[in-house]
Amino acid sequence: MKSYVHGYTEREAGRLENQSNTLDELLHYDSLWESGDIILEAGCGTGAQTKIIALKNPLCKFVSFDISEDSINKAKAVAYSLGITNVTFRKEDIFKLPFNDGSFDHVFVCFVLEHLHNYKTAIAELKRVLKSNGTITIIEGDHGSAYFTPESRDANLAIQCQVELQRRSGGDANIGRKLYPVLKEAGFECVINSPRMVYVDESNPILEEGFIRNTFTAMIEGIKVEAVSEKLIDGYTFDKGIRDLYKTAEKNGVFCYTFFKATGTKR
Amino acid sequence: MKSYVHGYTEREAGRLENQSNTLDELLHYDSLWESGDIILEAGCGTGAQTKIIALKNPLCKFVSFDISEDSINKAKAVAYSLGITNVTFRKEDIFKLPFNDGSFDHVFVCFVLEHLHNYKTAIAELKRVLKSNGTITIIEGDHGSAYFTPESRDANLAIQCQVELQRRSGGDANIGRKLYPVLKEAGFECVINSPRMVYVDESNPILEEGFIRNTFTAMIEGIKVEAVSEKLIDGYTFDKGIRDLYKTAEKNGVFCYTFFKATGTKR
Repeated sequence: MKSYVHGYTEREAGRLENQSNTLDELLHYDSLWESGDIILEAGCGTGAQTKIIALKNPLCKFVSFDISEDSINKAKAVAYSLGITNVTFRKEDIFKLPFNDGSFDHVFVCFVLEHLHNYKTAIAELKRVLKSNGTITIIEGDHGSAYFTPESRDANLAIQCQVELQRRSGGDANIGRKLYPVLKEAGFECVINSPRMVYVDESNPILEEGFIRNTFTAMIEGIKVEAVSEKLIDGYTFDKGIRDLYKTAEKNGVFCYTFFKATGTKR
Repeated sequence: MKSYVHGYTEREAGRLENQSNTLDELLHYDSLWESGDIILEAGCGTGAQTKIIALKNPLCKFVSFDISEDSINKAKAVAYSLGITNVTFRKEDIFKLPFNDGSFDHVFVCFVLEHLHNYKTAIAELKRVLKSNGTITIIEGDHGSAYFTPESRDANLAIQCQVELQRRSGGDANIGRKLYPVLKEAGFECVINSPRMVYVDESNPILEEGFIRNTFTAMIEGIKVEAVSEKLIDGYTFDKGIRDLYKTAEKNGVFCYTFFKATGTKR
């Protein structure tokens, strides 16, 4: 498993924690389902999103799974510490789910498809276990949506390394913008893709710290060894790019990034 | 005056018309001032924005000026045809306004700063004629905010030509993201920059036509002769880029662009 895949290192876990705290409202103000609904959360990782959606929907039941047993154990500990009792955690493979057709009222997937070498197969499997008239909700980032001031060629090159590494592992770091055609092609109806733009300037020091520094730049910084060893960039340029990204969180800096939240209905 | 500066050719005028019709609500739902306020609109061009803000604020008085007498005459005709009576149109130079200090309750500037070789001087002049506790509102695009699917290197290169041409004439096609530091540096207080993201997929054929084709792509298409003659790109690559931009308005295409609307108060 490559190091830039979310949720597998300590720093990554901290990063995802920061991300989920500061962006909760933006991404999840409408993550609401009806009382009694049973929701499958695919690729829950260490439970960064699970705790939010489980606490927001106390009368729903969640089945949250991940391929990593280690992540599942951490997610269980988080849920236990928060007194969350409406989630069952399981170790499962998104491509081969042990559930009958039409088992779930809804499916929720957050920051997962971008990493998959064959997300179409995964979505087909998630659709299989979804009830008729059930909905799927997918949240993904899009690294091509990142722009900022001061502008920096080196920062753009460093970000592009992340996009290229993700592409080489079969993923797509720019998948957010594509969720409408992705869900339409998978046969979902009533598809809506809702952009959630994060705009950060010096009037918002919490997001300067929580998003620009500790989420986005930390993520890019984390791929240095791999990017340099794959000869995508030289270490000097990469470091300069990272310094320039940190500058966007200083005086006169501005940083923009957009998450996308798409929903569709199975007929 | 170079051809890609807004509002000077017939096609440009049509393009700006399309833009202002389809994006009215996104940009102007909050373009509201108090009864009796006197508002200076700087760089009104042919009145594409004037008619919107004048009709939304019938109890305000507007003074709308532009450097181009031809544009002013067109703007007057538009206003007359719509029965707008609360606007006085004038030919003026944004760098040398014939108004006393503190003459206006508010200042409104839309799609102007991006073209100016010295926008700081212009903002200082606008601030001079603004009353104490008056507000400035600035709306600008940001070409670096454009991303889409299908992704296309050639489309990105064609867009980059527009950014470079604007830079060579002293403007900044990526100014939208920078409006917070721009207004802070000009000494305004209570500064807020509010992004207005345009997301278009095939569920929105009106914006596919009105924004992707007739606004953004038409604008880029309009710089071909200049971009090629300045040797920024070859004609074949440019044409391919334009074709790829049109593809983003077809099945499975998605286009994203963000306008920025910033406000600040003079103390």
